[in-house]
Amino acid sequence: MVTEPFRDTRIELSHGSGGLASRRLLEGLIVPHLASSQFNAGALTDAAVLPIESGHLAFTADSFVVKPLRFAGGSIGSLAVHGTVNDLAVSGARPLALLSTFILEAGLPAVVLEAELAAMAAACSAAGVNIVGGDTKVVEHGKADGMYVTTCGIGMLEANVNLSPARVQVGDKVLLSGPIGDHGITVLLARGELDIEAELASDSRSVWPMVQALLAVCAAEVRWMRDPTRGGVASSLNELAQDAELCVALREKDIPVRDCVRGACEVLGLDVLHVANEGQFLAVVAASAAEQALSAVRAVPGGEAAALIGEVESGPSGRLRVFTEHGSSRVVEMLVGEQLPRIC
Amino acid sequence: MVTEPFRDTRIELSHGSGGLASRRLLEGLIVPHLASSQFNAGALTDAAVLPIESGHLAFTADSFVVKPLRFAGGSIGSLAVHGTVNDLAVSGARPLALLSTFILEAGLPAVVLEAELAAMAAACSAAGVNIVGGDTKVVEHGKADGMYVTTCGIGMLEANVNLSPARVQVGDKVLLSGPIGDHGITVLLARGELDIEAELASDSRSVWPMVQALLAVCAAEVRWMRDPTRGGVASSLNELAQDAELCVALREKDIPVRDCVRGACEVLGLDVLHVANEGQFLAVVAASAAEQALSAVRAVPGGEAAALIGEVESGPSGRLRVFTEHGSSRVVEMLVGEQLPRIC
Repeated sequence: MVTEPFRDTRIELSHGSGGLASRRLLEGLIVPHLASSQFNAGALTDAAVLPIESGHLAFTADSFVVKPLRFAGGSIGSLAVHGTVNDLAVSGARPLALLSTFILEAGLPAVVLEAELAAMAAACSAAGVNIVGGDTKVVEHGKADGMYVTTCGIGMLEANVNLSPARVQVGDKVLLSGPIGDHGITVLLARGELDIEAELASDSRSVWPMVQALLAVCAAEVRWMRDPTRGGVASSLNELAQDAELCVALREKDIPVRDCVRGACEVLGLDVLHVANEGQFLAVVAASAAEQALSAVRAVPGGEAAALIGEVESGPSGRLRVFTEHGSSRVVEMLVGEQLPRIC
Repeated sequence: MVTEPFRDTRIELSHGSGGLASRRLLEGLIVPHLASSQFNAGALTDAAVLPIESGHLAFTADSFVVKPLRFAGGSIGSLAVHGTVNDLAVSGARPLALLSTFILEAGLPAVVLEAELAAMAAACSAAGVNIVGGDTKVVEHGKADGMYVTTCGIGMLEANVNLSPARVQVGDKVLLSGPIGDHGITVLLARGELDIEAELASDSRSVWPMVQALLAVCAAEVRWMRDPTRGGVASSLNELAQDAELCVALREKDIPVRDCVRGACEVLGLDVLHVANEGQFLAVVAASAAEQALSAVRAVPGGEAAALIGEVESGPSGRLRVFTEHGSSRVVEMLVGEQLPRIC
């Protein structure tokens, strides 16, 4: 084992060659940082090997291309950990292990990579999950905007979990874990192209503690879950409405939104229901279990602002309707177009 | 479900937005192409869910940034499937399922993406593995060289498999599955920067049938395996020698190399032992099982050129030595530098 610290100040193409420079980067920088999350011997071989019990395995992967790399409340590294942990969580699966692959731009300062490795280790530690392996490639300067990160994850489904749009029924309640729009607006502000200042941070976090609490009290009554990332709450619930061939009806006044997010959306002409979140989840729960579900999520630190925001109706099929306090309603479509590119 | 065919001629940023355009790309192009490999309902949710038996799960991920996207014998799509299948195979694991994530460049012709999806589906079908989910992001024109692809895979370890450099012993034999250097030289030629013509194709393929045959006859006697991709045979065997604190000694005359690859390496000043392969594997096998192992691999179509190329010696520790027919020897180091960037 080469165990020298990585001393190069910048990433070069040779660090992606698979030879000596690759090994120095892996052993001198990547493994030491992720070791706090038990980056194991598998990191240096072709695959990590994990003992596993029989059951239902959830398996997910996302690539992250957020711009800029860092923003209030998070960065590409923590986002990549939370994004995959949350995809497992909303599948009803306890996150077991992650892999991370990096596509690095030649010329990237090593300290930038190091900061992201540290952010990933911290996010893993907080989420109670380990990165057990990965891969690194390097592309020429001018490509890849510093770095792109891909994470994949496995988890085991919790007992009595059975999630599907087909299980959603008229009368079911829609639960949301907290205020929406924080991530999307934070990243837009971090780009510095807008003349808006706000005390706002991304909501990037693991939603597993909240999901775990929810499943503990009513796993069999949870019909469907989703983390409303790109495309926001509106895109997630439109997909649900289409797949379930039902209507989702929301009460606007019950949807938690911070004032500064609401204000920024007004200035920018955005519907907050289209703005990305990275630390919230939606659950459709049987009406009989809805209050119990809400109490369970609210009892988890960070879940205090959870709310029941609407319910499932028979029609119009495939639609998301939002009702104002005054009883009027509007149909909210999926996000159309590219108003929020590179948000995660 | 939107089930219209994807009619856009180019990928745009909106296809990565998570909204309607993303769903159209997924349902209109990606799912239909990968459906032949049973792209399941998990593709449209946050994670694929697979029933699984208890055992040892292998879990691996690689990003692919090969340039150009297409070359004789393969393309980024088939390479991404084979690369991850092979990482599972050389871990002794039967490939179970893959995920694929795409980072696409805005402006990419849809037909280019479509060709890669078709290549992935064909590679999956030949390898007997399914893509069960994934993710798509889009970055601005000028980034990402058309596309980067990440695949991750899971597989279950076969019975009696126990692979580790620590198990490698003096006297063990080194088995190589076939001729080396084909992939690396093919990709270099495909870049068109060299004034060399050769009838050559990448060796990109699944090595699982060969590995499976090997394990069937002597799983307990196989000590270590690796697919010598980036950095070539020399980097893989240097890592083994360092990790095992032993010496690997190869007989140059027994290493299969095509004449045109040998010629290209001479012109380019490359050591073929440093050139990447994408359809070969190395195995260290107990001497008592070596002939049986060789026969098993040679009996598999595509394994006819397998050879025993050397053995493990006590020292010099951490070194790869290559002996010529005349009895002289040279030490071959890991690949140093960046002579072959973007090869996979």
